[in-house]
Amino acid sequence: MNLTTAKEALEIILKTSENFGTEEVKFLNSVGRILKEDIVADRDFPPFDRVSMDGIAISSEAFNKGQRTFKIEGIQAAGNEQLTMQNPNNCMEAMTGAILPKNTDTVIQYELIEIKNGEATINLEAVKKLQNVHLKGLDRKQGAILISKNTLISPAEIGVFATVGKTKVKVAKQPKVMVISTGNELVGVSETPEEHQIRRSNVFTLVSLLEKINIKVETAHITDNKELLLNKIEIFLNNFDVLLFSGAVSKGKFDFIPDVLNELGVKKLFHRVKQRPGKPFWYGKKVYAERSRSAVAERSRSAVAERSRSAVAERSRSVVAERSRSVVAERSRSAVAERSRSTKTVFAFPGNPVSTFASCLKYFYPWYYKSVGLNFENKNQAILAEDYFFKPNLTYFLQVKLTEKEGKIFATPITGRGSADLTNLVDADAFLELPDDRSNFTKGEVFSLLPYRSF
Amino acid sequence: MNLTTAKEALEIILKTSENFGTEEVKFLNSVGRILKEDIVADRDFPPFDRVSMDGIAISSEAFNKGQRTFKIEGIQAAGNEQLTMQNPNNCMEAMTGAILPKNTDTVIQYELIEIKNGEATINLEAVKKLQNVHLKGLDRKQGAILISKNTLISPAEIGVFATVGKTKVKVAKQPKVMVISTGNELVGVSETPEEHQIRRSNVFTLVSLLEKINIKVETAHITDNKELLLNKIEIFLNNFDVLLFSGAVSKGKFDFIPDVLNELGVKKLFHRVKQRPGKPFWYGKKVYAERSRSAVAERSRSAVAERSRSAVAERSRSVVAERSRSVVAERSRSAVAERSRSTKTVFAFPGNPVSTFASCLKYFYPWYYKSVGLNFENKNQAILAEDYFFKPNLTYFLQVKLTEKEGKIFATPITGRGSADLTNLVDADAFLELPDDRSNFTKGEVFSLLPYRSF
Repeated sequence: MNLTTAKEALEIILKTSENFGTEEVKFLNSVGRILKEDIVADRDFPPFDRVSMDGIAISSEAFNKGQRTFKIEGIQAAGNEQLTMQNPNNCMEAMTGAILPKNTDTVIQYELIEIKNGEATINLEAVKKLQNVHLKGLDRKQGAILISKNTLISPAEIGVFATVGKTKVKVAKQPKVMVISTGNELVGVSETPEEHQIRRSNVFTLVSLLEKINIKVETAHITDNKELLLNKIEIFLNNFDVLLFSGAVSKGKFDFIPDVLNELGVKKLFHRVKQRPGKPFWYGKKVYAERSRSAVAERSRSAVAERSRSAVAERSRSVVAERSRSVVAERSRSAVAERSRSTKTVFAFPGNPVSTFASCLKYFYPWYYKSVGLNFENKNQAILAEDYFFKPNLTYFLQVKLTEKEGKIFATPITGRGSADLTNLVDADAFLELPDDRSNFTKGEVFSLLPYRSF
Repeated sequence: MNLTTAKEALEIILKTSENFGTEEVKFLNSVGRILKEDIVADRDFPPFDRVSMDGIAISSEAFNKGQRTFKIEGIQAAGNEQLTMQNPNNCMEAMTGAILPKNTDTVIQYELIEIKNGEATINLEAVKKLQNVHLKGLDRKQGAILISKNTLISPAEIGVFATVGKTKVKVAKQPKVMVISTGNELVGVSETPEEHQIRRSNVFTLVSLLEKINIKVETAHITDNKELLLNKIEIFLNNFDVLLFSGAVSKGKFDFIPDVLNELGVKKLFHRVKQRPGKPFWYGKKVYAERSRSAVAERSRSAVAERSRSAVAERSRSVVAERSRSVVAERSRSAVAERSRSTKTVFAFPGNPVSTFASCLKYFYPWYYKSVGLNFENKNQAILAEDYFFKPNLTYFLQVKLTEKEGKIFATPITGRGSADLTNLVDADAFLELPDDRSNFTKGEVFSLLPYRSF
């Protein structure tokens, strides 16, 4: 069998990342998004010589001449305009955050002085000129870049946006993603399955894995019917940037997805990866290169009409499209023509829960990060806490429990019962990626890690 | 000065966590929340003897008697009811996810057989009975606990909720939190500050730090006016579980918060912590022990009325209550009486941006985790990457940049210009907690870590 290695697969995926453009969002809604503009200091930071302790402001010259008791001339509060100390032998009370009063250059905190009858006495041998003064422009100069383009936004950046008055920020647009499950054995979450059925779960796992990176997705379930798959997937290709499939890519009689994608002009970039779980993984692209977008939309509508309408109608009961229905309908009328993107990306993961889960972390996440402009490289690693043996000549995504100790991350195998055992995912925290070139893995060795929990 | 140590402060905070009760949420909206029920297997997992490879199902007895070619009697597809193989010397094609056909006990994948004229020939010396069969109940038995109460919900748990048909799950209720900034030097984000003013940023940093743990907060700004503070804070105490302040807790002339809280009956549990940044941190509780809730609501309304109504009206222009106004009004009419909680918690952090940020991570997060039922202990640690010197006899929250290498986490100091330098927060990833009992910290030593970025 001619399998793509996990390394090659990731390389192909990263080489075929996309650009979804940019949009403006309210600064408070930008956490987790990728900044697409440099954030520049609109003024010096601090913007004025800023008092950094509550106390009194004096002229150090008077102090150095031997003066220790200073008449209090006034109070410089935070938020008030700069006052001027009239007499250089006086002092001004000055509060943290206030502008330093004119004719003063040194602040002495209340803890080190005594105030009596409107006079402050300093109990110090020496003071340092400018002590407790946070000088204008010390942190950053006006015009300096405070945050660079392509930063992943965290609460720390939110504070800076606020400070420079960026009520809106430019961020990478998120791809429009449709998550599609297949498989006749699957029933809805609120249904009671027959003996031979199980409830759908992979779409929901994918929804929440994608919500973790701030991508809102739509979901659909399509039964194992080729005609129905052709019709539905053609519509989805026209209306989304990315399709994520779970199931129907292996060697079964009803694993129609690779054929259907091929018939719809989605070019396979690889199928089957030298890995466990997730070997039947299929990845491809559809490029709408020269055609106008509206032509595509039109063609898609007529294609749907051509193909046995009645068959579709008959089976539409079995198509569960939770959040997709109205949105798709709405979009197919207008949005396709408007949007300029012309390449669609298809990740077709195997349907076993552990396969879908690991594949999303290993392949979709990096593709997304690369697409929105992060120079993503998975630097997460962990130390194997026990010897482990895995014979097949495949990259193995070993389920592990993580523990941190002394600044080191240890991974303990929580093997489970294979790729269908989704309950095992709740006992583990991550996948440790064991390479395909050997069978024995020794306690203390370090391997790449795909974590899915954080605290 | 009689300061509380950082360790004592955290102990007091954890000892005074609260319980906010539980609520039901849709399972897909539960990521990041704390599960408050055990999730039990509603049936065996797998629920039937499940085919785990696409191929043919045979009776191993026939194989062991020497038979290698088997007539294909039918196809057992995933999602179909169990078929019965009539002739024990035949085989059934069987798909991944299907129920194993009756009278078969072994599955051989397509890769290892040859199919010709309706017959499958197996090219193997031996087969193992039950190979490629995922036996009913192997992963988990019906009634087994799949996920325990008090688990922090991740996408892995979402899949299990779906599988067992939990469309809604019981989770810990989030506290109602009001974030309040003070300081006359602060103007709104969309305003252009005068020379001596700066824009508000801490409330927004806190909003996004709390959104990270799925707490939606309301925010308000109150100018440094004691009467106004008394009036507003009394209302907030009645309507929220937690007040988070930023500013006005130090030694300045207009640092009214400790006095105001005292006058409103909020009991101080500590004020001033032996740490940098964040020394003036104030923490306390207000217990509405024996009084009926409606009485409290009534009293609060009349108290507001008593205190110089006109002063409030005059100054109400300067009270910016972004998301709070309508909600507070609505709640003060009804909610106080309804709710059963009777202890309010007040975290009053110093107003410098770095102080507020570090204090939220160090104190509020653990208090929250403990309150919702996680046995939280910060196990994050990192290895100091350079020698560092810090003289004051204080716990120091050193800003650091993190790098991972060989399963180890290294922390490189990114010192910045002190607690007012919020731009430095964007250059760092975490705070490394250096203990207060010495001044020299050596490269290679391991210390507690408060990370605020994750990838």
